Amino acid sequence: MTAIEWRFSPQLIEDALQKWLPVIGADETSSSDAQSDAQLRAAMRHAVFGGGKRLRSQLVLEAAGAVGGKVQNALAPACALEMIHAYSLVHDDLPAMDDADTRRGRPSCHKAFGEARAILAGDALLTLAFEILAADEQEADATRQVRLVRLIAHAAGEAGMVGGQAVDIAWSDAKISDISGQQLLQMHARKTGALICASAEAGAIAGGGSEKQIGVLRDYGRHLGRAFQIADDLLDVIGDPELTGKASSDAVNNKTTATALFGLEGAKELARESRDAALQALESFGPEADSLRHLARYVVERER
Amino acid sequence: MTAIEWRFSPQLIEDALQKWLPVIGADETSSSDAQSDAQLRAAMRHAVFGGGKRLRSQLVLEAAGAVGGKVQNALAPACALEMIHAYSLVHDDLPAMDDADTRRGRPSCHKAFGEARAILAGDALLTLAFEILAADEQEADATRQVRLVRLIAHAAGEAGMVGGQAVDIAWSDAKISDISGQQLLQMHARKTGALICASAEAGAIAGGGSEKQIGVLRDYGRHLGRAFQIADDLLDVIGDPELTGKASSDAVNNKTTATALFGLEGAKELARESRDAALQALESFGPEADSLRHLARYVVERER
Repeated sequence: MTAIEWRFSPQLIEDALQKWLPVIGADETSSSDAQSDAQLRAAMRHAVFGGGKRLRSQLVLEAAGAVGGKVQNALAPACALEMIHAYSLVHDDLPAMDDADTRRGRPSCHKAFGEARAILAGDALLTLAFEILAADEQEADATRQVRLVRLIAHAAGEAGMVGGQAVDIAWSDAKISDISGQQLLQMHARKTGALICASAEAGAIAGGGSEKQIGVLRDYGRHLGRAFQIADDLLDVIGDPELTGKASSDAVNNKTTATALFGLEGAKELARESRDAALQALESFGPEADSLRHLARYVVERER
Repeated sequence: MTAIEWRFSPQLIEDALQKWLPVIGADETSSSDAQSDAQLRAAMRHAVFGGGKRLRSQLVLEAAGAVGGKVQNALAPACALEMIHAYSLVHDDLPAMDDADTRRGRPSCHKAFGEARAILAGDALLTLAFEILAADEQEADATRQVRLVRLIAHAAGEAGMVGGQAVDIAWSDAKISDISGQQLLQMHARKTGALICASAEAGAIAGGGSEKQIGVLRDYGRHLGRAFQIADDLLDVIGDPELTGKASSDAVNNKTTATALFGLEGAKELARESRDAALQALESFGPEADSLRHLARYVVERER
């Protein structure tokens, strides 16, 4: 299984991202500040248009579709979550963090644009995410917009993604024997799970789902996020570097992974359990949630 | 003139900031992830409770008061703007940016907490700012909240603060003769002006001001921001390092400043003109805007 069968065309997201981040042109004759603007934008585009899977943004659209919402209303949170994901990778790759020279087979942002500009490009992407969520668009519902800002900020911040990354960094000096399986799953739930879970919930909110539907898709997203991260750890061990695009493995970087703590078979079993729990959560949905079901199977069986 | 006469007690802001960022306790017996959470929070608090002037947050309250609004309704944008200001200083001080070891006479965030945690603390503060703006509070008006998110994200991002900082960094290799006075004022308008201007406008919005009042306070904020930055450049040259708390001057750091481009007297004249323009903008207001008038005089005459 190498491709995902989406209900909504991935081109919708690419077009929306391009609309928010068009190229800023400048040449040698431009003023120094215009050149700076062009470079900063280029660094932001390098991070966003870097061959990612668009898992989070597409999940927003599919969740909105599953609750019967219009895909148009889900594009803002889809783009916002993609911007936040992109910024987090730029900052994670910095020398002071994971010190990664490459990302998806290309130079990491600071390698291509310098460290100062990479820090600022990340900051600008995070800020842009919230500008997008609050955009003054036709049919925008302020109550829903505020709820999305609250949800996504909470998932991306100290309680979620940023806090999880801080724990992961703190663990780079720790012995694996000092970390329990529960602690690892909890760190993953924050570092990668929170944003994936928020994507499913954001789609349900943007699509005008009922509180019950929103709760169901939050549960689905939580299990999906766990399945995704464990599968990621497995790919690091058994995946083909040509397909995963990872230059150096987590083991080399002294990262604590699910395979290190649960063993290969234990991690596989956990991934399958999480997938099944995600499918189970969707029980109350009919065929309108089939692409979400497909996604849950895909994240466990994917090759990159 | 060494203190500002505020209409609203600065303690209101300190209390609100403490509410959003209470200490997270941990000791040697705590788990490694609990210790990481405590350290990340400590780094965030180091940045926010570092003896700043609270200019932006107090400006929000005073602007809300000037339009007859309740100070309670202005505390969220006041805190959000203070978080964004604090994050920007943490990232600006990083080795890849201005490489500052101290800030207001204390170790900079990365000196005290390490570079990785400082980057993450900055990211978390920026994210928290938007969580605060979208908080589900009594009397919160969703339309107003969305407008504040949009305003503040725009001012803090690529078009404003982050973009201005990128230009400033790009200029560290430039010759002063290559930069025009207009370019410098434009860079300042983005790097520091945008957030100060947004503070005045945000206060007017949060206080329920009319569109005319909001426009007036935006104009006031724009002039105030320029006066503030030029005065900052002047203090760098003629100020007492004991009072300003600046360890190394902008001249040493090869920063392009208003005094370098306009000369000492030219810069003083520009600061006075900006102050007068700020006062002029408030013409339609009565004594309810007196603390804003006082502030415009203060920023030009301050000693730190």
